[in-house]
Amino acid sequence: MAERIRATYWIETPYPIQVAAEVMAGEQSSGTFTRLAAETDELRLAHCARVESIVELDSTLEPSLPMRPLPASFGSKPVYRRARVELSWPIANMGPSLPNLLATVAGNLFELKEFSGLKLLDIQLTSEFAQAYRGPAFGIGGTRVLAGVNQGPLIGTIIKPSVGLSPAATAAMVKDLVAGGIDFIKDDELQANGPHNPLTARVDAVMQVINEHAERTGKKVMYAFNITDEIDEMQRHHDYVVSAGGTCVMATLNSVGLPGLAKLRQYSAVPIHGHRAGWGLYSRSPFIGFSYVAYQKLWRLAGVDHLHVNGLRNKFSEADDSVIVSAKTCQTPMFDAPHNGCTIMPVFSSAQSAEQVADTYAALGNTDLIYCCGGGIMAHPGGIQGGVSSLRQAWDATVQGIALETYAKEHPALADAIKAFRS
Amino acid sequence: MAERIRATYWIETPYPIQVAAEVMAGEQSSGTFTRLAAETDELRLAHCARVESIVELDSTLEPSLPMRPLPASFGSKPVYRRARVELSWPIANMGPSLPNLLATVAGNLFELKEFSGLKLLDIQLTSEFAQAYRGPAFGIGGTRVLAGVNQGPLIGTIIKPSVGLSPAATAAMVKDLVAGGIDFIKDDELQANGPHNPLTARVDAVMQVINEHAERTGKKVMYAFNITDEIDEMQRHHDYVVSAGGTCVMATLNSVGLPGLAKLRQYSAVPIHGHRAGWGLYSRSPFIGFSYVAYQKLWRLAGVDHLHVNGLRNKFSEADDSVIVSAKTCQTPMFDAPHNGCTIMPVFSSAQSAEQVADTYAALGNTDLIYCCGGGIMAHPGGIQGGVSSLRQAWDATVQGIALETYAKEHPALADAIKAFRS
Repeated sequence: MAERIRATYWIETPYPIQVAAEVMAGEQSSGTFTRLAAETDELRLAHCARVESIVELDSTLEPSLPMRPLPASFGSKPVYRRARVELSWPIANMGPSLPNLLATVAGNLFELKEFSGLKLLDIQLTSEFAQAYRGPAFGIGGTRVLAGVNQGPLIGTIIKPSVGLSPAATAAMVKDLVAGGIDFIKDDELQANGPHNPLTARVDAVMQVINEHAERTGKKVMYAFNITDEIDEMQRHHDYVVSAGGTCVMATLNSVGLPGLAKLRQYSAVPIHGHRAGWGLYSRSPFIGFSYVAYQKLWRLAGVDHLHVNGLRNKFSEADDSVIVSAKTCQTPMFDAPHNGCTIMPVFSSAQSAEQVADTYAALGNTDLIYCCGGGIMAHPGGIQGGVSSLRQAWDATVQGIALETYAKEHPALADAIKAFRS
Repeated sequence: MAERIRATYWIETPYPIQVAAEVMAGEQSSGTFTRLAAETDELRLAHCARVESIVELDSTLEPSLPMRPLPASFGSKPVYRRARVELSWPIANMGPSLPNLLATVAGNLFELKEFSGLKLLDIQLTSEFAQAYRGPAFGIGGTRVLAGVNQGPLIGTIIKPSVGLSPAATAAMVKDLVAGGIDFIKDDELQANGPHNPLTARVDAVMQVINEHAERTGKKVMYAFNITDEIDEMQRHHDYVVSAGGTCVMATLNSVGLPGLAKLRQYSAVPIHGHRAGWGLYSRSPFIGFSYVAYQKLWRLAGVDHLHVNGLRNKFSEADDSVIVSAKTCQTPMFDAPHNGCTIMPVFSSAQSAEQVADTYAALGNTDLIYCCGGGIMAHPGGIQGGVSSLRQAWDATVQGIALETYAKEHPALADAIKAFRS
């Protein structure tokens, strides 16, 4: 038990940085405000969190988050210093348990009065965690096998309207999509098991289409059924999807929680597609929350196989460089050996079309991803088939180092896409 | 299915407020950016979220959260307007499922590019939710019966140091506490099932003390064992606590997730003590997150019996008025009839002593709470017994409308507390 888990934070504080860092370490381990008799030197040595490093950054004259009034000793113009701080904890404190790790590295410390900003930037776990958890069962390779896509990205889409279609209407849309050559389809995160489109009826209708297409053509399109729900319902729905021949289930991670996801991983016979709805709560403020680098490690270890990362020039507030950092981190091994490093497939989506392909590939450097387009497929002048073809052509061109405009000369679907989507 | 769920938000946006509100409603229901053929009028009528009301508030010239660059049409000095907006959804969209409700009312909308601030203020659920979930099994009345405290608050404490004690050392501390007349003891949120103090060994050691004391005196002190963990481990630990005669289990809510908590509620034979570690993530920024009013409704419906609300003049960053709003909302019925309105016991803690009793009672107006003190008990000149007595005396005086100073003249433990803790 000599290994320690580590966590890195961005902090902002009017207190001396060393003092503030010690408060974090104390509050999140054996420290108390008044030292108690039972808090022996031996106990502290064995259990106290340690401040491993401090890198001072810039400073500001206004607190970024509201604070209680400061003591008079701070004077009338306190300076709020920023720093990157690394803490470590002995694994003996929480054991290899993700829910309890969370209470340690992202618990009460967000509320500490000493801070006007605190963001969890990264986590380094120990081999005990790698042993205690299963990680992704399918990851990149397993997803490729099931989807029958040996190279290039999985070209995907999301059923729209997000919510309101009947099972039959969903299946009718799926019929057009599989006929158009798509690799991957997913439910929206708003579409789970609502009374107007129950999961089992949707599975029946959709899998009939997918299975028939697979029997006819040999290509089984991967459909991520949104089974997000309570613990037992998720398991029932998973079993239903698998018995109908489905090859993927989707869970909204912030809704099911880490234990819900780890439980799903225990029995899941298919890849788990992780949606990050609610992620803005962690990411929108620069002064409180998690980085995606820290966030996604927890879910990968718990067993997710695909994770949403938004897309370049998306319809949300996230900047492009942040999207690429997120995608790269999904593909970066967390551990040396087990679970293939827990590497997974990033899922690009939100306002994507052939237009973002070259930039995405240039930034990511590989095609181990799911590339989901809505309008980029549906609004293509050549219909779904034209849309899907344009995306494959864009990726083929890009991987071969050919400019889209050049490739488009002999590939009309791509030419149409450029014409339709270039603003 | 005529009822609609409702959610109220604080928003900040440079777009016309009505437009921004319609974007929220569209993104979180059947809307798409380009209207699709399948998005019929009938579908929209049945499934689209509705903007129920808009109350414009103040405005600012700087965005409170970072945004993408605005289109040139906004000019060089855009105004960021603030408003309170109420949206509603048909229950048909998500059904009475808390995880899917969360994806609807607190999902992708936090990331929408139209907003420089977005906070979920409140949620109104429908009777279908009251029927689908169990709510608190014990609540205020059930907790009082099990703890043998018919009136006044449960006087409690938290085992400290938070982490690092052995099971035997924990039990030794419990022995002193029960001898001192305490009603309630809890594990720290950092102390769950770490290898240095496994849950089962701690239950064995602690319950021996508590059971012996109960046999001798008739008073069974309630101990909230922190069983936070993965789904199956939680159940195993719950069963172990109950079979040893324990009367309470604790879960760190943000660690176990709503489905984890609802699963625990299914089988729990004792009250569930809910810890909110990580709450700062939701609360610290005024510009992103949840209000406690919205947050706690989800957990109450899922089945929590006690919920932490911080305390007056606490060691964290939360202001006193916010603490009181939180405590009152825990005691306010969510529904007319079922589950006794899901009312629960608020848990006050953090730097509490006899000194905050009068203000707490004046603000809350009742004693249906757990009042946890650390130093307020341990650092009392009369030891644990003196500390616990001082707290009971403070509450007795306050409820009778007698000033602490007056009551202290004939109650030495209270006199000592005033002397020790009045700054």
